[in-house]
Amino acid sequence: MTETEAAARATSSSKPSITLIWLNDSRAQRIAWLLEEMGLDYELKVYKRTESHQAPDELKKYHPLGKAPIVVVDGQVVVESAFIVEYLIDHYHPQLKPAESDHKQYMQYRHLMHYTEGSLMPFMLLAYVCMMIRNTPVPFFIRPITGRVADGLSKSFVNPNLVSNYDWLESLLKDQPFFAGDELTGADIMLSFPIESAQERMGGFYSKERYPNLFSWVERIKARPAYKKAEEKVSAVEANL
Amino acid sequence: MTETEAAARATSSSKPSITLIWLNDSRAQRIAWLLEEMGLDYELKVYKRTESHQAPDELKKYHPLGKAPIVVVDGQVVVESAFIVEYLIDHYHPQLKPAESDHKQYMQYRHLMHYTEGSLMPFMLLAYVCMMIRNTPVPFFIRPITGRVADGLSKSFVNPNLVSNYDWLESLLKDQPFFAGDELTGADIMLSFPIESAQERMGGFYSKERYPNLFSWVERIKARPAYKKAEEKVSAVEANL
Repeated sequence: MTETEAAARATSSSKPSITLIWLNDSRAQRIAWLLEEMGLDYELKVYKRTESHQAPDELKKYHPLGKAPIVVVDGQVVVESAFIVEYLIDHYHPQLKPAESDHKQYMQYRHLMHYTEGSLMPFMLLAYVCMMIRNTPVPFFIRPITGRVADGLSKSFVNPNLVSNYDWLESLLKDQPFFAGDELTGADIMLSFPIESAQERMGGFYSKERYPNLFSWVERIKARPAYKKAEEKVSAVEANL
Repeated sequence: MTETEAAARATSSSKPSITLIWLNDSRAQRIAWLLEEMGLDYELKVYKRTESHQAPDELKKYHPLGKAPIVVVDGQVVVESAFIVEYLIDHYHPQLKPAESDHKQYMQYRHLMHYTEGSLMPFMLLAYVCMMIRNTPVPFFIRPITGRVADGLSKSFVNPNLVSNYDWLESLLKDQPFFAGDELTGADIMLSFPIESAQERMGGFYSKERYPNLFSWVERIKARPAYKKAEEKVSAVEANL
């Protein structure tokens, strides 16, 4: 049975039992949004980070790496955000990826599924580390030094790379509303985390004037009923943490 | 036409024209190894990093992000290491992935294709950044401070995560010679870069005693004729850089 046949069979058969293992301040919200877009029921199982902001050890009962998000689909544990998105789309909602016959968009989708966590997020992580270094509690007369270390890393390596990546993402939306064509796909769901984070944190170069397409795209996804529904569910859960 | 059919057709048809855009000190060697495993001819097009260790601007003529490796297959530009590996295997050598019917190994393969660059490499990158911070040229009386910043990041975040990731990888080889079963797959090719780098750079926790399975695996892949052939080609090219 090919994957396409499996997907067709799964789509037509009874609904799967899905649990989403959710952790605060993680990238799990994307998966909640995806599940809402697919119209699938799921149980949200909530875990809270420890005081040192680590994932709690309990997550290791699902997978030895103990990171969220994790989904459990009919007993099958799936980890790694991009793999979760691909797995769910392939099996339950192939409409959320371009058709293979639409070659250019299909290639873009497959590329972006790897690009988001494999290329873009490492630079976002480094930007976060530079910020942490700048804020390291050190005596005030030392602060210029730790600042210099962080600035060296930002200016020579992190910022130029972030700029070229966001410029490229902006260019992808020049003639189309979503990252792999006219319709929302898993690539938009993967990219939502870094692009929304850029808006919140990268004041330096990331502005509405420079990135009008990315700003409109964020408005467009936030207006989707599924996005709102996921946000409401997660907010309700977070209020009780 | 499904992807499986496309793969079958491509495998049986005439050989594709392949160019591998190669950059020194990059992860492009993996793709050379893969192409040798597949028995495909390819042209190696060599570029050298600039003095500030960046990819040269010429790479942007292939793709706006200007990073290596890039492969051009019959005019189709493919970027992002894991996507290149998946693309080549799907189209020209499906033997390098587990059969879909071998569910557990197929899931492992798909997971590891995302895991290597999406989860493991960011920690490797942070370990490298910590090393750079420790070696930042600062006056000697300041060095303890930059050292403290780097140590803080290493001890609280980077090292514990590297240890749990390598422990997990070690466990995957407990009962099988390769990461997704009894045969070499694209997952081994993806993992070769971080695992070989760990052996070279992570003296602190990464030892033969602690990771005997990973050390044997490295010996096993290095003994493969295709690995040796790629290494020879790349060495010959590097000697002329």
